[in-house]
Amino acid sequence: MTSKISKVGIVGSGFVGQSLGCIFVTRGIAVKFYDALFLTDTECISNVKSGLRQKLKTVSPKVEDLPKLESSFSFSSTLAECVLGSDLVYECVFEDPNVKQKVLLEIDEVAEPHTIITSSTSCIMPSVLSEGMKNREKFLVNHPVNPPFHLRLVEIVPAPWTKPEVVAKVRELMVEVGQKPICLKREVRGFALNRVQYAIINSSWDLVQQGIVSPSDADDLMVYGLGPRYAVIGPFETMHLNAPNGVRDYMVRYEPGMKAVSVDMGQNPSYDKETFEVIAADLESRCPVQNLKDAIVKRDEALKQFKKIKTD
Amino acid sequence: MTSKISKVGIVGSGFVGQSLGCIFVTRGIAVKFYDALFLTDTECISNVKSGLRQKLKTVSPKVEDLPKLESSFSFSSTLAECVLGSDLVYECVFEDPNVKQKVLLEIDEVAEPHTIITSSTSCIMPSVLSEGMKNREKFLVNHPVNPPFHLRLVEIVPAPWTKPEVVAKVRELMVEVGQKPICLKREVRGFALNRVQYAIINSSWDLVQQGIVSPSDADDLMVYGLGPRYAVIGPFETMHLNAPNGVRDYMVRYEPGMKAVSVDMGQNPSYDKETFEVIAADLESRCPVQNLKDAIVKRDEALKQFKKIKTD
Repeated sequence: MTSKISKVGIVGSGFVGQSLGCIFVTRGIAVKFYDALFLTDTECISNVKSGLRQKLKTVSPKVEDLPKLESSFSFSSTLAECVLGSDLVYECVFEDPNVKQKVLLEIDEVAEPHTIITSSTSCIMPSVLSEGMKNREKFLVNHPVNPPFHLRLVEIVPAPWTKPEVVAKVRELMVEVGQKPICLKREVRGFALNRVQYAIINSSWDLVQQGIVSPSDADDLMVYGLGPRYAVIGPFETMHLNAPNGVRDYMVRYEPGMKAVSVDMGQNPSYDKETFEVIAADLESRCPVQNLKDAIVKRDEALKQFKKIKTD
Repeated sequence: MTSKISKVGIVGSGFVGQSLGCIFVTRGIAVKFYDALFLTDTECISNVKSGLRQKLKTVSPKVEDLPKLESSFSFSSTLAECVLGSDLVYECVFEDPNVKQKVLLEIDEVAEPHTIITSSTSCIMPSVLSEGMKNREKFLVNHPVNPPFHLRLVEIVPAPWTKPEVVAKVRELMVEVGQKPICLKREVRGFALNRVQYAIINSSWDLVQQGIVSPSDADDLMVYGLGPRYAVIGPFETMHLNAPNGVRDYMVRYEPGMKAVSVDMGQNPSYDKETFEVIAADLESRCPVQNLKDAIVKRDEALKQFKKIKTD
């Protein structure tokens, strides 16, 4: 493998491909695009170019940077041309397992020994996508969140055969371009993001189904309550900061209530001691109990700024 | 009942009571505090005063307003003095059913015919709190989110016997003081907020328990992914904006995946047609399908500003 990723090929020039392209070029990485539509739709490349310009304007504050950034994009007339010479090839085609598998096998066929191959899929298992690839050890899922240039999270999901150094390399690249990667230790249905997202949708759906709140109120619950909170501190950090002596104190106070509410929702969380110790140790290393007050001040300052820019 | 609430009595002068007091006085409502500690702890009132000053500085940007705002607070030496003359009495004592019941009965005993009585509880059922009150028709739960002066959401939760006009009155008051009330149609364990919050904690806990992600990565998932998204648009709005033709299109595309992931998490959502129609009609009245593109531009603008103020 190459020591540093400086050239990325993006296969698929829709919204996700364009967004990722902008993220890469603004951090000095050259991007080659390929899309099967380039051959059949004569206006495709110019449409992509105007889409990229529009997105760059959103990402980059300086207009004078635009020409240089735009010159870092190129457009390949064949898939092989896009793949050859790229340190990493990012598959961003339509979210359909058959389409993605077919395109990934084509990329695999022409990939050079050093090439890393990633997919932007939000839910197709990396093992399913890469099973038949000869370069499958160098493949992983690198799922951005919509819209990628405003939300920094990416989920890196390895297949069972993905080499750890490939995970490390992609992680390093995504940090370098300003994103915030989280690394799943193994693949799981829905990855991490959609598991939590669907848990939120399911609990909101249940509230509407039971006639407790209107759909608008279920949305407002997040927009004016949990959303800003979680934009500043995560769910475990919230537990840590919401009891005078941190997360251990929180569990003593609130575990019976959490359990009762969960059971009422048809859920049966274990709140097992082993997992709790992992969570508590992680929180206490990030924020020792004696620093909780400072963390609360920091949280409040961020919330205050968030509230300011929130428009009705 | 009084036609307009202009005087509020707050029983319990801790963090929640102080925060609510600041929210009320900055919108021109006089606040009387009472706390049992006023009688036993000679420094209590001066401590509360300095807590209030500190919070007012956070809420109100103008230093010259401080003296006037502070003069809108008064401190009663008996509970009866705090209750008498108040249009609304807000019980904000320690989160313990027995303590709260006892204090509420005392308030109930001296309440005037026009007085509305509310509790700040985050989880004790309003029926449990008010069962024995003679004024129980004028009681409801009015649960603020921590910290109340930065997070605008309040959950209004009626007991089975709460009069609808009391709900309407409290809702109106909370809107007037700049908060964002949602009205639960009936009481339910965990109310709305904690049901969704515990669903998030449970799915995050499960990811850690299964060894998929670290607790830090579970927190980052929210802070850099779902948190900012939901600070701008709610879970149902997200579905509506994440498919080219809105929420009906979203369900056609994603329902099988949502179901499969949910089952993998041990959940069994119905996604029933009746509830779906309620959700779709609500979304389409808020944002008709032809306006989706504008809504996405608005979402992105808010996300862009959020990203700017996010510090690492």
